[in-house]
Amino acid sequence: MKWKGNIVADYVRYDSTQIKQWLNGVFEKLGVPPRDAQMTTEALIHADLMGIDSHGLNRVTNNSYAGGLKSGAVNPTARPEVVHEGPATATIDGNRGLGPVAATVAMELAIEKAKQTGAGFVSVRNSSHYGASSHYSSLALPHGMIGFSMTIGGLGVVATGGRGRRIGINPMSVAAPAKNRPPFILDVATSVVAGGKLELAIMKGQQVPLGWIVDAAGLPTTDPKEFQRGGAILPLGGGPETGGYKGYGLSVMIDVLAGVLSGGGFVGELRGEGGDNSTPHFQGALSIEGFSSLDSFTTIMDRMIDYLKATEPAEGSSGVLVQGEREYAMEQERLKNGIPYHREIVGRITELASDTGVPLPTPVGES
Amino acid sequence: MKWKGNIVADYVRYDSTQIKQWLNGVFEKLGVPPRDAQMTTEALIHADLMGIDSHGLNRVTNNSYAGGLKSGAVNPTARPEVVHEGPATATIDGNRGLGPVAATVAMELAIEKAKQTGAGFVSVRNSSHYGASSHYSSLALPHGMIGFSMTIGGLGVVATGGRGRRIGINPMSVAAPAKNRPPFILDVATSVVAGGKLELAIMKGQQVPLGWIVDAAGLPTTDPKEFQRGGAILPLGGGPETGGYKGYGLSVMIDVLAGVLSGGGFVGELRGEGGDNSTPHFQGALSIEGFSSLDSFTTIMDRMIDYLKATEPAEGSSGVLVQGEREYAMEQERLKNGIPYHREIVGRITELASDTGVPLPTPVGES
Repeated sequence: MKWKGNIVADYVRYDSTQIKQWLNGVFEKLGVPPRDAQMTTEALIHADLMGIDSHGLNRVTNNSYAGGLKSGAVNPTARPEVVHEGPATATIDGNRGLGPVAATVAMELAIEKAKQTGAGFVSVRNSSHYGASSHYSSLALPHGMIGFSMTIGGLGVVATGGRGRRIGINPMSVAAPAKNRPPFILDVATSVVAGGKLELAIMKGQQVPLGWIVDAAGLPTTDPKEFQRGGAILPLGGGPETGGYKGYGLSVMIDVLAGVLSGGGFVGELRGEGGDNSTPHFQGALSIEGFSSLDSFTTIMDRMIDYLKATEPAEGSSGVLVQGEREYAMEQERLKNGIPYHREIVGRITELASDTGVPLPTPVGES
Repeated sequence: MKWKGNIVADYVRYDSTQIKQWLNGVFEKLGVPPRDAQMTTEALIHADLMGIDSHGLNRVTNNSYAGGLKSGAVNPTARPEVVHEGPATATIDGNRGLGPVAATVAMELAIEKAKQTGAGFVSVRNSSHYGASSHYSSLALPHGMIGFSMTIGGLGVVATGGRGRRIGINPMSVAAPAKNRPPFILDVATSVVAGGKLELAIMKGQQVPLGWIVDAAGLPTTDPKEFQRGGAILPLGGGPETGGYKGYGLSVMIDVLAGVLSGGGFVGELRGEGGDNSTPHFQGALSIEGFSSLDSFTTIMDRMIDYLKATEPAEGSSGVLVQGEREYAMEQERLKNGIPYHREIVGRITELASDTGVPLPTPVGES
């Protein structure tokens, strides 16, 4: 419990433009060329703006970004290289550089191809953690396109019928523009939950809902500690009787499109013993004008979004959200009032600022 | 209970080639041109061969096929029409014809485009029920391509946080070739279960697992009768605490790619009051040679499939299946021994045979 006589706010707010400038400076100090630093910063702060707090600055201080650059696991000057190409397709080798650089270059190439042919799909190998999938799918929106982005994630999920962590927390995102409504932005892991929620439950000494995890024998449990004792997260759908094999299949689908198609490999070998821990992605764009008119498309999108929003709430519920709606509202608020960072993260970025000699901006508020 | 003194097998087996010939004859008698009859027969019997029994002959006698043709809801001579086209994209209007005709023509066009550009995606409007999604995604396999197929399904699913049936049991399929293993064929509805399993539970007076359905107030229930009293099926993932909003999002994604992109409309308006009950689809193909070599791809596929199969089984489980494995084994067995049809279905097709004057082939066995 907090001592009421000495109230300290849990969150400190930074202006998003200023924190981007700071982060660019940090990446440049770590040897990242300015344009690549900018791509990485955009991806990470975009996650924070949309409220996907686990995938923004929170990640910067761990092995995926600053840590990886310092240890040499991530090459700051790697150039993503097109190793195979067709009119609507390509494979890019990330050459062990920053994930957001390879993924942004891949998405820009997919968009270029979709401008020419209507469709562009780019598979990426030898990349690293790329932040939130929706950052990349959303890059298609200003071009009147539907964007797709998938990546291999952590090896933490059980394959239906088995035991142990055998498949990936592979997330996918699809973004489609609307007219006067926020865009539809789906961004989902193919597992029931991400690892962060389990860690939180363990920290708080709480049980988790049945259907989140299995123990080391592959049996359902509500004790999150069983995850640490050889258990695994269930795929989306939970156990077999509630369709868990569907989430299992969707996770493997992402291995196929990102890992197998790019030649990078599947999550089991990349994250398993002897694996090189590299990360494959899959990026795509479909030009709406290749199918119909953008105006007709966005008109129907608005009509569908209004229909979904008009759903009568379940008893005790505040109503139905459309995918991307909450993130869009969050982004507007955070662009205006700054992004709130937890003091624990502020501690870590303060250290990084001191390490790199790039001073943090002045906070714009607390909350 | 069955009277032991008068054993009657529950299933009658027909040779798959003979039953296809019969079904072609039936469709031709109902006014369908031979090539279109063949496309429809291939789709329906393919479902039966793979053990997706709900989507084969079982469907023929209801409104989607024979019934629809007889009532005029489905136009037997409709030609699918390309109404918009780019090098890698197209929109097809099914003109209210048979779903398998529009969907096969669309998939063939997607494959043609993928031969030219590496990618082909075709959105379809004004079609009808098309059978099992995996039939279409699988059409890409012999071309060294990854196939995609999605369709709008029944309006039976609750939108997370809401009540009532507001979104579709929209299924999707992705098929990818392997080298010496059966292909990976994902074929999943974006809801926890399909309607058929609920009907079965009601018939048998059984409760259903928590996480399948909600009642009219949008609250979880295990009583399948609540589905008939204004309840709805939950999206894949179940309730919000187990990620049901992810299945909800995947269902809407299919509305976007099939319904909105083709201009056909979304499931809520097509199946709702005043809706025209037409069915949009979305078909796609990615040429593997547009990304890497087919040999390298199928080599990694085999390695991944072997890895998944090598998973230690959960306690009490017979082990891990890879998507498409069971269907492949079923297809081999049924090609050899004939397709077993339940006597109830045999009764209905006997009636259809008599109706149309196309005699059923002689059964090849019982089981």
